[in-house]
Amino acid sequence: MSTHVFDTGIALTATTDGSFTGHTSPAYANMVGPFGGMTAAQAMNAVMLHPDRLGEPVAFTVNFAAALAEGSFTVKARAARTNRSTQHWIIEFFQDDQTVLTATAVTALRRDTFSAAELEMPRVPAPAVVAPTESKAPMQWVRQYEMRHLTGSMPRLWDGMDSGSSLSQLWVRDADLRTLDFCSLTALADVFFPRVYVRRPLRVAIGTVTMTVYFHANSGQLSRTGSGYLLGQARAQAFHNGFFDQTAQMWNEAGELLVTSHQLVYFKE
Amino acid sequence: MSTHVFDTGIALTATTDGSFTGHTSPAYANMVGPFGGMTAAQAMNAVMLHPDRLGEPVAFTVNFAAALAEGSFTVKARAARTNRSTQHWIIEFFQDDQTVLTATAVTALRRDTFSAAELEMPRVPAPAVVAPTESKAPMQWVRQYEMRHLTGSMPRLWDGMDSGSSLSQLWVRDADLRTLDFCSLTALADVFFPRVYVRRPLRVAIGTVTMTVYFHANSGQLSRTGSGYLLGQARAQAFHNGFFDQTAQMWNEAGELLVTSHQLVYFKE
Repeated sequence: MSTHVFDTGIALTATTDGSFTGHTSPAYANMVGPFGGMTAAQAMNAVMLHPDRLGEPVAFTVNFAAALAEGSFTVKARAARTNRSTQHWIIEFFQDDQTVLTATAVTALRRDTFSAAELEMPRVPAPAVVAPTESKAPMQWVRQYEMRHLTGSMPRLWDGMDSGSSLSQLWVRDADLRTLDFCSLTALADVFFPRVYVRRPLRVAIGTVTMTVYFHANSGQLSRTGSGYLLGQARAQAFHNGFFDQTAQMWNEAGELLVTSHQLVYFKE
Repeated sequence: MSTHVFDTGIALTATTDGSFTGHTSPAYANMVGPFGGMTAAQAMNAVMLHPDRLGEPVAFTVNFAAALAEGSFTVKARAARTNRSTQHWIIEFFQDDQTVLTATAVTALRRDTFSAAELEMPRVPAPAVVAPTESKAPMQWVRQYEMRHLTGSMPRLWDGMDSGSSLSQLWVRDADLRTLDFCSLTALADVFFPRVYVRRPLRVAIGTVTMTVYFHANSGQLSRTGSGYLLGQARAQAFHNGFFDQTAQMWNEAGELLVTSHQLVYFKE
């Protein structure tokens, strides 16, 4: 058993009725409840650990129905449909018999085909020459990642001025080095600070309501990426009456587009 | 009751056990099974018609687990979690007791906040000066939409040459005019021809496995958009070993970004 803080965080225990038990991870605590990326990774892990799984994840959607209370939760995952080369999963988390998370996943057996990354990695300086992002953020989860922002870090001046742009670019990896896999990549897809803060630095309450992750890499590519940096890029397309979206991409240092992701975030002002 | 072909297509009948019955629509037939946009709209309609619904859709993910057989299907929709201003839905379609579709939706009560469309509408010629797209496509569903492509229509020459770009832009609306609503916008989010054909014209089998739609407009904006044209834009970010993604946006003629969507598509060659 790995003793890496991430592996401890995503650990699930199988129960006799076919479900799992998990626990919120203090090391990945957020302002209210846990870091959504850790919660998403726990849901993904239920699929990864499930004895019925066919192939590897290609798509994953997680809906954060409620802030998880600190402590344990029950995970139910079932293969709703198994085809020859694809499989459809429904995952649900419960605390006190109340649904706190829903998710769906598609796993698949891939075959060699035409492949091309249409969206090329932006030309940016190498991680070694980009300063580590200093953070005084009180959230524990931020300490679990080494971030080196090129643009769009957390604002220094909370002046509420609309900058017109929510673009962020950063190099990022686990602070305690760990070889990339589907669970850690799921968590990394949620590593971006809220777009509304980058666009307009004003302290408003926010919470991701749903995130979708598409994997454009197989486990071999993730292993080969190892504990190298990922270049993450995120921007909002629209802010509208209480919700904004985020579209994001992550490349490895070799320039391979490993994952694209999207989320919709609630904000209150 | 509207007699519009779309309303007939999405119609669901409530059954005594709280589920619905729907039918595939011959008018929206695709090469194999129905047009995914119609199927997605039927799933959305189960939420819209449900007596427990709180607020309006803000996010929707549909997973196409199997090609629907022509005929009827059972729809189960439940509010897994209801919060003060948001609600989380799980939807499932069955044929012969087998799951053929899974979906999740988030509905919400919106409030007035900071709003901005960060992604501006591309400057393109008005619909009236763009020629209607001529199609000899055998699929029925294509006839239900008036399309006027600016770029990236279905290829004329299937030469397999990699063009390097999968970008499409078109003006589109229901061929038989109909006021926009959440169900028709869900269907329109799937109106784009497969990205792999635009990027590299080669006849390969394709099928959308999952689509996510984020709504950046409320019902009032959709009503005001009426039966006007939408500018749709779609492109792939990556093609990799049997799957490619699509990221898409749709604006109304007034330049309001109504919806952003994403899908992952299987292809076989």
